[in-house]
Amino acid sequence: MLKRLLYTVALITLLHNTSAQVKFYPAKQFTMVGKAQETDSFYHRLDTNKYKGLPKRVTQLLANTAGLAISFKTNSTSISAKWCVSRSRPNQYLTPIANKGLDLYVKIDGKWQFAGVGKNTALCSDEVIINNMDNTEKEFLLYLPLYDVIRQLEIGVDSKAKIETGINPFRHKILIYGSSIVQGASASRPGMAYPAKLSRLSGINFINLGFSGSAKMEPEVADMVASVDADAYILDCVPNANAQEIKQRTAYLVNAIRKKHPKAPIIVMQSVIRERGYVDKKMGEAVRNQNLAIQNEVLKLLQANVKDLYFITSEKMLGFDHEGSIDGTHPNDLGFERMVNYIYPIIKETLSKHGIN
Amino acid sequence: MLKRLLYTVALITLLHNTSAQVKFYPAKQFTMVGKAQETDSFYHRLDTNKYKGLPKRVTQLLANTAGLAISFKTNSTSISAKWCVSRSRPNQYLTPIANKGLDLYVKIDGKWQFAGVGKNTALCSDEVIINNMDNTEKEFLLYLPLYDVIRQLEIGVDSKAKIETGINPFRHKILIYGSSIVQGASASRPGMAYPAKLSRLSGINFINLGFSGSAKMEPEVADMVASVDADAYILDCVPNANAQEIKQRTAYLVNAIRKKHPKAPIIVMQSVIRERGYVDKKMGEAVRNQNLAIQNEVLKLLQANVKDLYFITSEKMLGFDHEGSIDGTHPNDLGFERMVNYIYPIIKETLSKHGIN
Repeated sequence: MLKRLLYTVALITLLHNTSAQVKFYPAKQFTMVGKAQETDSFYHRLDTNKYKGLPKRVTQLLANTAGLAISFKTNSTSISAKWCVSRSRPNQYLTPIANKGLDLYVKIDGKWQFAGVGKNTALCSDEVIINNMDNTEKEFLLYLPLYDVIRQLEIGVDSKAKIETGINPFRHKILIYGSSIVQGASASRPGMAYPAKLSRLSGINFINLGFSGSAKMEPEVADMVASVDADAYILDCVPNANAQEIKQRTAYLVNAIRKKHPKAPIIVMQSVIRERGYVDKKMGEAVRNQNLAIQNEVLKLLQANVKDLYFITSEKMLGFDHEGSIDGTHPNDLGFERMVNYIYPIIKETLSKHGIN
Repeated sequence: MLKRLLYTVALITLLHNTSAQVKFYPAKQFTMVGKAQETDSFYHRLDTNKYKGLPKRVTQLLANTAGLAISFKTNSTSISAKWCVSRSRPNQYLTPIANKGLDLYVKIDGKWQFAGVGKNTALCSDEVIINNMDNTEKEFLLYLPLYDVIRQLEIGVDSKAKIETGINPFRHKILIYGSSIVQGASASRPGMAYPAKLSRLSGINFINLGFSGSAKMEPEVADMVASVDADAYILDCVPNANAQEIKQRTAYLVNAIRKKHPKAPIIVMQSVIRERGYVDKKMGEAVRNQNLAIQNEVLKLLQANVKDLYFITSEKMLGFDHEGSIDGTHPNDLGFERMVNYIYPIIKETLSKHGIN
């Protein structure tokens, strides 16, 4: 009996100590980085009620936090997080960390450097992301889940530490509209999605408007993309549309953007060549047809004097050893690294021509 | 009523056709590649009942199929699989494909090339891995789950296709004893674990004896490692043992191997530097101490005239941009690629000195 009482007292003391050491702050009081535009819902990529007639799946995916990150600065020696996601089934092609977890970067010597991850362990997780840091003030970026919604998020620091909102560390705004590959499948963690990699590499703000399996260039989606003010537009939306859809819809999408943004460069990308397509002849042919279709559409638009329109071919995108994907479709971290090494110099040069540096 | 009857007939016809198209064969009738030695249990890496006093977790992990692959050849245009795994909880650091799924390679122009994956969808999955291939005979390697057991596995091919057992395509036998990193965390799929990458790259048979979190060089485990006949031994077991354990146990492990295998080269590797350790000062110090401890132990052994003992330092193993891990500890596919690019030339040269080419 006495033993049990002592145990209970010890437990209460332990819980008290633990909670006394870390103080949690709602993430909503800090700066959100990576949004296409301001929205009513802090954790949505766009306000879906502003857009009518979107495919249902696109509306759902706009609530996924792909590409979003919380910017804050603190002198805390530890960073924790409490966050809640949805009951959506785990994605077959993602680690739980990329799917529903968090990914923390810290600025060291002027560069963003990986610091730690928040493992998703339940509907609501409570995790220490990093500890034992020195207590100088540092800037942090906390990337949110690639393939789920955030219902709630609090960031925890040492109870006596200072924590303040950070700045958006990235210049300009480049919108990337595309498929699951843009959304981040299959990076190992949220910060390894290719738009996030491009942002850290360039200092330029690449916005993730990836819609897993649903980047089909429907006119309503094209209007939504065009409605977002950006300095440039990257269209990586070939993988989800078949050759016929590409033929029917590319011109509308490009023209919709051009009409609203007369001077913004538009960069169209071919689909990564699906590694399975080298063995699955039908899949190989389908991707070749998609890539031929998009090339033809871009050529037609250029011949029709659409200005500041650029095209990136994909044959070298994932390298030549066929190891750059998880499943023959979605790049793994090795594939994304190769893809960024290939597209970044082209994108950089193109943006630079338009004074976007 | 008539409509329902017609629907039922159509469904039965469809099911009949589907099952008529694919014929399944027990994987046990084909060649198993990647085993340390022959075992009673086809899907276990070692017979645990041969070894007494192993830590419980090591015994459990010996039933994980990390590094194992089924070798077969067929002229089928499609490959399917039905397999059953355990109810173990999904691993936080792995995709479901790496954790409990399958990974198929095909030999094209003399090289092993990725073909497709078997997604783990349930306790027992039934998946088409690849289809629409041409119908020439080809050699295949089907890698098994990295972090689970196989309860049952059947390989499906076109009902009229020929399927035969394949050969072990890899020469010699090099045992790699180590931690979760050897076992494959956090490759995106089974074929991307680093021992599997080394085998395909070199044509040499690297055996995965990775024990997640449990590579602590206990004397009983050391005796087990030493009991396996191999042409060389790679010890990548620093991450799980603390500096004190490394100091106490390294000599016993190396000497146990040397005693049983007087001429086999033994290559000891430092731990990859945990990326989180650059920010988490305590973790950084712990890894430095582990790596210093192993270096001291190897130096002592060399000074005590242990022959054919080699050492690989780890400072360049994952590159310098801190992007090569999923969580600051486990390499992602990018990290494993860098690790292999770094260690392979050293291992190749070392083995070559001993006539292992």
